[in-house]
Amino acid sequence: MRYEEYTIEGRNAVLEAFRSGKTIDKLYVLDGCQDGPVRTILREAKKQGSLFQFVTKERLDQMSTTGKHQGVIAHAAAYEYAEIEDMFALAEEKGEPPFLFLLDEIEDPHNLGAIIRTANLAGAHGVIIPKRRAVGLTATVAKTSAGALNYTPVAKVTNLAKTIEELKERGLWFVCADMGGDVMYDTNLTGAIGLVIGNEGSGVSRLVKEKCDFITSIPMKGDIDSLNASVAAGVLAYEIVRQRMLKK
Amino acid sequence: MRYEEYTIEGRNAVLEAFRSGKTIDKLYVLDGCQDGPVRTILREAKKQGSLFQFVTKERLDQMSTTGKHQGVIAHAAAYEYAEIEDMFALAEEKGEPPFLFLLDEIEDPHNLGAIIRTANLAGAHGVIIPKRRAVGLTATVAKTSAGALNYTPVAKVTNLAKTIEELKERGLWFVCADMGGDVMYDTNLTGAIGLVIGNEGSGVSRLVKEKCDFITSIPMKGDIDSLNASVAAGVLAYEIVRQRMLKK
Repeated sequence: MRYEEYTIEGRNAVLEAFRSGKTIDKLYVLDGCQDGPVRTILREAKKQGSLFQFVTKERLDQMSTTGKHQGVIAHAAAYEYAEIEDMFALAEEKGEPPFLFLLDEIEDPHNLGAIIRTANLAGAHGVIIPKRRAVGLTATVAKTSAGALNYTPVAKVTNLAKTIEELKERGLWFVCADMGGDVMYDTNLTGAIGLVIGNEGSGVSRLVKEKCDFITSIPMKGDIDSLNASVAAGVLAYEIVRQRMLKK
Repeated sequence: MRYEEYTIEGRNAVLEAFRSGKTIDKLYVLDGCQDGPVRTILREAKKQGSLFQFVTKERLDQMSTTGKHQGVIAHAAAYEYAEIEDMFALAEEKGEPPFLFLLDEIEDPHNLGAIIRTANLAGAHGVIIPKRRAVGLTATVAKTSAGALNYTPVAKVTNLAKTIEELKERGLWFVCADMGGDVMYDTNLTGAIGLVIGNEGSGVSRLVKEKCDFITSIPMKGDIDSLNASVAAGVLAYEIVRQRMLKK
């Protein structure tokens, strides 16, 4: 899978990039710039859920490679997202029941990278992330994944709850971790499964949790509230690995 | 446990801090400064294994709170490290066989923080780190631990291999993860145990590995080499939790 990060500069180029559906990781806009074209660009950025930041002219000049940024620079990712079909194909090729990760609004690129790395090593067939309110495949994610991005397909979907509905019809069961669920060791996690990992701060959102077939819990024997999101993903994924190995 | 980060400025103050055994996380020295006192300070920094960096006068002036740095500023941690005895006391208080984490040269503060967080939630009684070639308890570690540093004792030792020897005499068994070991599900991890986690890049060092009673492995079902260190620590720790829960 090819990955390259590049910048797009100037008002028309940036607007065009948004309208053609390119993945814009981050948008930088000249502080105080409020004219029509810039407002249109910001509206597109909000629609897509891209992060944006107002910066000084000096900062923009520094980032610019063309010298003609017109107050707007976008960081785009040339990483090609996969399709969910690719994941089913991979599972079939390996002769295994599908095992997918679904990430509900993971915000930290280090967590996303570590989770893709874990998905690869736990033998999952793909990682599904939402288009909005979540970090995309940035250079940091690629680096933190330690190469896993080249092997494990990552797909971006508009509505995670709707995707879960569709995947249920194809035979997947969905499990998410939350307090109060059965301890994971007592939950049957074999078979075609989607493992849902929640946001770092707020956990799995209500709409997504309602779609899950099981709520399971990691035993908590300490004084604080929760594990780091990528550690929790690893612990849950390896409980699935253990149960799958036992079943064979 | 109290934690505070502060700076020490000026040649005498910094040298005194080193000599009194204070934990210096990082030392900043004016670029090009090579006189006797500065060389003495750098020698102490190397002896303690503190990180150091040469910086411009502007940078030092910016960091300085006293305005009298004399070309040397040290970042020190007022975090009080625990003693290994505190960990045994905690295990006894809870009526559990001791369960300790030993970190062999973890370098990334985010990993160290996430591992202390995991140690707390997996019910471990303490975390032991080496004095040299490893990150200490910095502000980033405290933050990433999500409060776990306030509950889980962390001790610093001079020689990890020697500490393992001493703890063996007190009845602990030591396990580390490495390729080629028995799969962790087939290794008996109940009882008084020390879990050894290796460096992010190079794994567990030879000397430490030789002291371990078991080498175990996390099943790897993917294309890349290894999990993130804090994820691996979580997966192993929770296999210990699972086996301990089963045994009850």
